[in-house]
Amino acid sequence: MTETRQHLEALRDAMRRVNVDAVIIPGTDPHQSEYISDHWKFRDWLTGFTGSNGTAVVTLDQAALWTDSRYFLQAGMQLEGSGFEMVREGIPGEPSVHEWLQANLEDESLIAIDGRLFSVVEASRLEQFCGENGFMLATEFYAIDKIWADRPARPSAPAFVHDEQLAGETVDSKVERVLEAVEAAEADSIFITSLDEIAWLYNLRGGDVDFTPVAIAFAYVSEKERSIFIDKNKVTDEVARHFKQYDIFVRDYDDVTRYLERKSEHEVVMLDPNRVSDTLANALPCQKVYSASPIVAIKGIKNEAQIEGTRRAMERDGVALVRLFKWLEENVAGGNINEVDVWTRGQQERARGENYRGDSFAMICGYKEHGAIVHYQADDESASTLRPEGLLLIDSGGQYLDGTTDITRTITLGNPTAQEKHDFTLVLKGHLALQRAKFPAGICGVNLDLLARQPLWNEGMNFMHGTGHGVGHFLSCHEGPHGIRMQQNPTQLEPGMVVSNEPGLYKTGEYGIRTENLLLVVEAESSEQWGTFYKFEPLTLFPYDLQLIDRSMLSAEEVAQINDYHAMVRERLTPMLSAEEAQWLAGKTQAL
Amino acid sequence: MTETRQHLEALRDAMRRVNVDAVIIPGTDPHQSEYISDHWKFRDWLTGFTGSNGTAVVTLDQAALWTDSRYFLQAGMQLEGSGFEMVREGIPGEPSVHEWLQANLEDESLIAIDGRLFSVVEASRLEQFCGENGFMLATEFYAIDKIWADRPARPSAPAFVHDEQLAGETVDSKVERVLEAVEAAEADSIFITSLDEIAWLYNLRGGDVDFTPVAIAFAYVSEKERSIFIDKNKVTDEVARHFKQYDIFVRDYDDVTRYLERKSEHEVVMLDPNRVSDTLANALPCQKVYSASPIVAIKGIKNEAQIEGTRRAMERDGVALVRLFKWLEENVAGGNINEVDVWTRGQQERARGENYRGDSFAMICGYKEHGAIVHYQADDESASTLRPEGLLLIDSGGQYLDGTTDITRTITLGNPTAQEKHDFTLVLKGHLALQRAKFPAGICGVNLDLLARQPLWNEGMNFMHGTGHGVGHFLSCHEGPHGIRMQQNPTQLEPGMVVSNEPGLYKTGEYGIRTENLLLVVEAESSEQWGTFYKFEPLTLFPYDLQLIDRSMLSAEEVAQINDYHAMVRERLTPMLSAEEAQWLAGKTQAL
Repeated sequence: MTETRQHLEALRDAMRRVNVDAVIIPGTDPHQSEYISDHWKFRDWLTGFTGSNGTAVVTLDQAALWTDSRYFLQAGMQLEGSGFEMVREGIPGEPSVHEWLQANLEDESLIAIDGRLFSVVEASRLEQFCGENGFMLATEFYAIDKIWADRPARPSAPAFVHDEQLAGETVDSKVERVLEAVEAAEADSIFITSLDEIAWLYNLRGGDVDFTPVAIAFAYVSEKERSIFIDKNKVTDEVARHFKQYDIFVRDYDDVTRYLERKSEHEVVMLDPNRVSDTLANALPCQKVYSASPIVAIKGIKNEAQIEGTRRAMERDGVALVRLFKWLEENVAGGNINEVDVWTRGQQERARGENYRGDSFAMICGYKEHGAIVHYQADDESASTLRPEGLLLIDSGGQYLDGTTDITRTITLGNPTAQEKHDFTLVLKGHLALQRAKFPAGICGVNLDLLARQPLWNEGMNFMHGTGHGVGHFLSCHEGPHGIRMQQNPTQLEPGMVVSNEPGLYKTGEYGIRTENLLLVVEAESSEQWGTFYKFEPLTLFPYDLQLIDRSMLSAEEVAQINDYHAMVRERLTPMLSAEEAQWLAGKTQAL
Repeated sequence: MTETRQHLEALRDAMRRVNVDAVIIPGTDPHQSEYISDHWKFRDWLTGFTGSNGTAVVTLDQAALWTDSRYFLQAGMQLEGSGFEMVREGIPGEPSVHEWLQANLEDESLIAIDGRLFSVVEASRLEQFCGENGFMLATEFYAIDKIWADRPARPSAPAFVHDEQLAGETVDSKVERVLEAVEAAEADSIFITSLDEIAWLYNLRGGDVDFTPVAIAFAYVSEKERSIFIDKNKVTDEVARHFKQYDIFVRDYDDVTRYLERKSEHEVVMLDPNRVSDTLANALPCQKVYSASPIVAIKGIKNEAQIEGTRRAMERDGVALVRLFKWLEENVAGGNINEVDVWTRGQQERARGENYRGDSFAMICGYKEHGAIVHYQADDESASTLRPEGLLLIDSGGQYLDGTTDITRTITLGNPTAQEKHDFTLVLKGHLALQRAKFPAGICGVNLDLLARQPLWNEGMNFMHGTGHGVGHFLSCHEGPHGIRMQQNPTQLEPGMVVSNEPGLYKTGEYGIRTENLLLVVEAESSEQWGTFYKFEPLTLFPYDLQLIDRSMLSAEEVAQINDYHAMVRERLTPMLSAEEAQWLAGKTQAL
């Protein structure tokens, strides 16, 4: 019996002991985090599957795991011998979790979940499903605490203070703005579980999860109290002084439930139902106002210090990329660089700059056909060795104390074909059109999304991911509330928002192309008759591959736009480069 | 005392008799119609204001009328001496109806409405407002029936059958498709109050209101029964035979409430809460499924017969426009044509063609600064006399048995300025961009709206109305469910939908520009990898004014697009024109 098979049987024993017929195990943590620490990777332990998206469902005689097309191959291999069958999300004919449960359970079956891992909204949907289908639901099935013998400890990286000069706003000011929103919603206080929201609010950072510099914690704020629930071993002297300075009371992470249970029943607490867990929401004996967290909207608009910091971080990031791409160009022919080596080298180059605190996500380095796999992750087994031909897509980013970066460039490693140039230029035209957009106040990402797609649509092609996501400031590389997508999102674009611009084109089995800059929304002009207009300032500083541009496909306006951008890149980066590097960059940014 | 002042006092007497403190009087009818018959113009009678958008509110000592910027001037004049003050919607600082009521009423005041004129949604919002503010609400205040001595009778135009060949679908087939949607929503039947939905469903037309060929009626449909509630004097022999053929049972219009009251309590009836009145919804003793009417979605997609009919109607419409614009060109210099004359002439020219049954809306004919008033309506008093200079905007449309048209053209009457040409060409560029769009299945109007606005946005300008609305088939000129707007609308564009493409630019005190064609969504191409793409076929057939085009602002693609469109217009219309008219059109469509 495989190890995972033993884990599955241990779970079933636990289910039998309390007469549970089915268990749903999501791949998340009590903070609904994008990246979770090993401590909460129970689904991985149970199934053997390590992808970022997957939900396991177990009955006494069946077990299945739902994942999306990014992971079909990986899950197929990892689930072998585990007792879990794979269900492929998005494939017609494959059942949803609900349909599968309907097919496999009898009336009055008891479905159990760990309510700490389900948001209020998710739990309430499940409750409705159970009600409609004659199932019962138990939300306190804590097998994770009981049967996972070798469970990793909760991470214990020390927290640290995010410099007020870099953050650009004091904790006092942030708390005040958040409480204004809380009071406008007729609540007395707010309970916060999202790690990046807590980090932003208290100017605090940590190292508990990959890629996002956050500390695992909860927070509670009212006019009278600022609390943080955190493992005390993370609170260094510096952090303790900071907490003292801003009247932030430290409570133990594990005390949060008991603390909530003791709230006055007269208090009205604001909770984000998509972020707070069912268990913690239910612990509150008081009134609740369910509302999207006001912190998401507030922190989505960057202040001058954050913007200026991001510009500086972009310069260092650009320098690192010059060194990475120059190294690539000079060494690919040697035949001993593979996709994983590129990530390693990228980290080294970024680390040479100031303020670097790791990558903002796992580099996507996809050579030739790997580039067409949108979320491709090279490992030692899969990694292709680069040769002086074909397209290479590199999507990477850094976490710097003064800003978070995220950039994608696609380059040719030699002898680009006409088709490659045609496709690259199509994607670039969309990227440029979005980047030079001018638009009135009040419009949303969906109104602009077309700009990035139209050159592809005109040829009957498309890309099936969003065009742009918000980006945190030395925080999560993906954040809300705004975005640029085909789908509707009611958040209007406003000055101070940072958003990515990343159209792509993916030809299965051939290559992938993506070109991504981060943009800042800035005011363009204002008139009494027509109101205020906004435009984008490109924050990212690195040239597009001139060898891949089919100039005949570009308008004069587009050529000028590329030349202006390249001139700015050259001007901003050159002072930080060696003479040899500067010369390399000058070649890469020569006018079209 | 003015006549309207006497009407106001008569209303207050009626209020005092039943202890009502405030009455809200909307400008609509029991069918939530866009155009209402005189029989329901109680608000006009009461206030003297005849605009299409206005809500009157009366207390025992105050009276106010809310309207929007289109009507500030007109309402200001018409309300003089009426006892009503004007409240300007959309102007900061002006109160909403709710705010005004809060300020002018005491606790426990009784607010009264005629629930037949409020949709379920409107009445429920009002009820919530009253609950939150300590007011009481009475929904059966029928002053309209009691104090309006000289009230016009309900219109009695004969109904007529819409030819099945032109409609392209039998009543049986339509009823079957609607009942499928009703059953999918787990309802047994549907009660319909929108006049255009009833007209579509039963292939019936009428002449009870301006511009939309509908008969005033209600309808009820289940597997067992098809009923229409209509004044029997409208049911001609032809209509009676049609009803008999399709098992449509004729009931008296005034019996509808009693009929609904007698429904079995076990029945589940589907109602559109934005269209059915509060009174009629409450008359039903049974279960209700509130849902957007499935008819809106079904009739939004035209069948082949409707599309082919619309193409033919567009040809006749184009011929009429050739004659109208030629006449204008030849006679403006004479100095005795004003804006009203243009409408009259336009109706005469359209009437020369087959199948014409009146205009689809009141022509907007705006010369010079009048063109900048988006919903300008010339009357004998306001009408400007045309001279051989300046811009003229004409937005008009016809109702033909085989299709409904809606077209806007802006022309110069002589010596266009560089600024006029610049602005005209900007608007045209947006219009052309939308018209040549290719886009994947699944996208909505909001995704494309930008195309029509971008040339204006690039210069910091905009237009503040929608870009496109759906259009009925020998029915309402404005219909849903789709549209092309800055605002989000979840309806996806699908083949068979007709939508207008009408960007504009309005310079107050100078001129207005708008260019409008109707477009049909058609399939463009399909591939396994990228799915299905759609494009637009322009249905409208009339040239853009070549004299107003600044060719230097156009790309080669745009020039070719104009030339191709003009060639098509010439080819389709010429066979129906006299030699002289054909020569005129040849000049207007010569290649750029």
